[in-house]
Amino acid sequence: MSATFGRVAVLGLGLIGGSLLQAIQHAGLQAIGFDTDARTLAAAEGAGFVIARSDADAVRGADLVFLAMPLPQVAGAVRSLAPYLRADAVLTDVGTLKRPVLSLVREHAPHARFVGGHPLAGTEQNGWAAADPLLFRDAPWALPIEADTDIEAWLALASLVCDLGAKPVPTTASEQDEAVARVIGLPHVLAEALALSGLSGGALGLSLAAGSYMSGSRVARTRPDLVATWCDGNPALVDALTEVVDRLTATRDLLAGQGSVIGLANAGFSARMDWEGRSFEPVELTLEPDLLRAHGRGGGWVTAVLPDANGGVRLLGMRPRG
Amino acid sequence: MSATFGRVAVLGLGLIGGSLLQAIQHAGLQAIGFDTDARTLAAAEGAGFVIARSDADAVRGADLVFLAMPLPQVAGAVRSLAPYLRADAVLTDVGTLKRPVLSLVREHAPHARFVGGHPLAGTEQNGWAAADPLLFRDAPWALPIEADTDIEAWLALASLVCDLGAKPVPTTASEQDEAVARVIGLPHVLAEALALSGLSGGALGLSLAAGSYMSGSRVARTRPDLVATWCDGNPALVDALTEVVDRLTATRDLLAGQGSVIGLANAGFSARMDWEGRSFEPVELTLEPDLLRAHGRGGGWVTAVLPDANGGVRLLGMRPRG
Repeated sequence: MSATFGRVAVLGLGLIGGSLLQAIQHAGLQAIGFDTDARTLAAAEGAGFVIARSDADAVRGADLVFLAMPLPQVAGAVRSLAPYLRADAVLTDVGTLKRPVLSLVREHAPHARFVGGHPLAGTEQNGWAAADPLLFRDAPWALPIEADTDIEAWLALASLVCDLGAKPVPTTASEQDEAVARVIGLPHVLAEALALSGLSGGALGLSLAAGSYMSGSRVARTRPDLVATWCDGNPALVDALTEVVDRLTATRDLLAGQGSVIGLANAGFSARMDWEGRSFEPVELTLEPDLLRAHGRGGGWVTAVLPDANGGVRLLGMRPRG
Repeated sequence: MSATFGRVAVLGLGLIGGSLLQAIQHAGLQAIGFDTDARTLAAAEGAGFVIARSDADAVRGADLVFLAMPLPQVAGAVRSLAPYLRADAVLTDVGTLKRPVLSLVREHAPHARFVGGHPLAGTEQNGWAAADPLLFRDAPWALPIEADTDIEAWLALASLVCDLGAKPVPTTASEQDEAVARVIGLPHVLAEALALSGLSGGALGLSLAAGSYMSGSRVARTRPDLVATWCDGNPALVDALTEVVDRLTATRDLLAGQGSVIGLANAGFSARMDWEGRSFEPVELTLEPDLLRAHGRGGGWVTAVLPDANGGVRLLGMRPRG
């Protein structure tokens, strides 16, 4: 299916965009990259990748365009590239929150064949130097299907995502933003709080901090402005934080009254182990937006987009067992 | 210095005790292990280690005894082994909280040459099967010096800890318990809360959970009863949780008012990076309890216990620069 795309433009060559440029080229497609930072551009060119001198140059002739710059730069980029975007080109992005980008694109490039995307594949590293063509292997990749999403564009993108070794998850911008509040926003806020409060006890604590502090605060190493774009403006994160504050307050009160954290520890252990222990089964999917979104809502994803005997497509997936 | 110990008994062969038995034998000392669990004992024996048929057998003839069972079993073990402990034997433990063990030993074996110890070297794994003779390499190892601590016993143990590749940190039971509230108790409570609240949003969140959820909840995989022994009864953890709850509440209120997490993210990032970026310088230490405790309080540790020209010892260490 991804033979559909003859030339793929990647705008923004940080960790995600840089990894994308490399992964797409490794997948045998023609990829062209652009970044507003001259040193990044030079590094990508030096590593043997095709780069453009402007976003317009990158976008002209591309039939798939990835917006892979940080969220604050997306509006400007969409405005700037809209005149050069081919009418049949698919436009996508890789941002953590899907609603803000959807709004920006609807405002600045209303005629674009836009399909939002979010590969759950970051690390606390960033920049071209950290890019890795295997970054997306086995990574979930949220691909919203909105009421106005062009399903052919969605399918072509889902197929490319499969080719990169990732797992397209059909959803909506709203549902994915609600979900990532808990599995991205919350872990980052807690890591920041731990990084700070864990170390505020003095130099002895600094030297005794070991494994649990280290892994708990790992993502506090992420560029703070990126963390803010993943958290700010997501009302579901407010709810998630309220839940955690209530839980921690109850735990503190228990401890203060000579009680035990055992209840919390048992529940946390079970949640983590149940998550690890999930198993999945293959399923043939129906190419119908409501059913696809329900598949994602239920924890499923797409594994392959294949041609069928009638010139259409077969869509295969995995879903949680039981 | 650790030639001081002719035979070392390790009681309890889980992750820490099992690793100790292996590390001590690898260091060229005679080590004998015991565990109340018959399968663990058989596994250790099968792996070629010397095991005893009872704690009394292990302790008889040992001049260093490690209490490496979970905290709830320490009181019974101390009572049971006290009659067999040689008068000149050093007794130590490896528990996370140092005050509870100190009280138990003072109650049940008041004449023992006891020096508490806490290697900061766990993982979320447990049991003999996870044991690793290199577990202690570069690990801080809190070694309290109380008013009544036998300084010769402390020195001999510090020397052995150095031989295992670890970093003895002179402190007191109270100061170390306060410090670990923030760097062990807090990270575990936050990991449990994240494991639960991160996943309580439904199946879509379960399938989108990736790197930040995974590392943030890693230590929720720890046996819950062990987590409880590291947290319960430590008043400093109540204070640390109060601080975190205040921080998270402020963040939630900011987000609810269309504000940003950027302030928290900047502060957390700096805390984590400053911690990683610390540098140290060598220092010759004075063998004086108050000065040694101050060295640990300031973030320093011991690197070597060496004989000096006059039949005494030289104590070398590292301390934070600046």
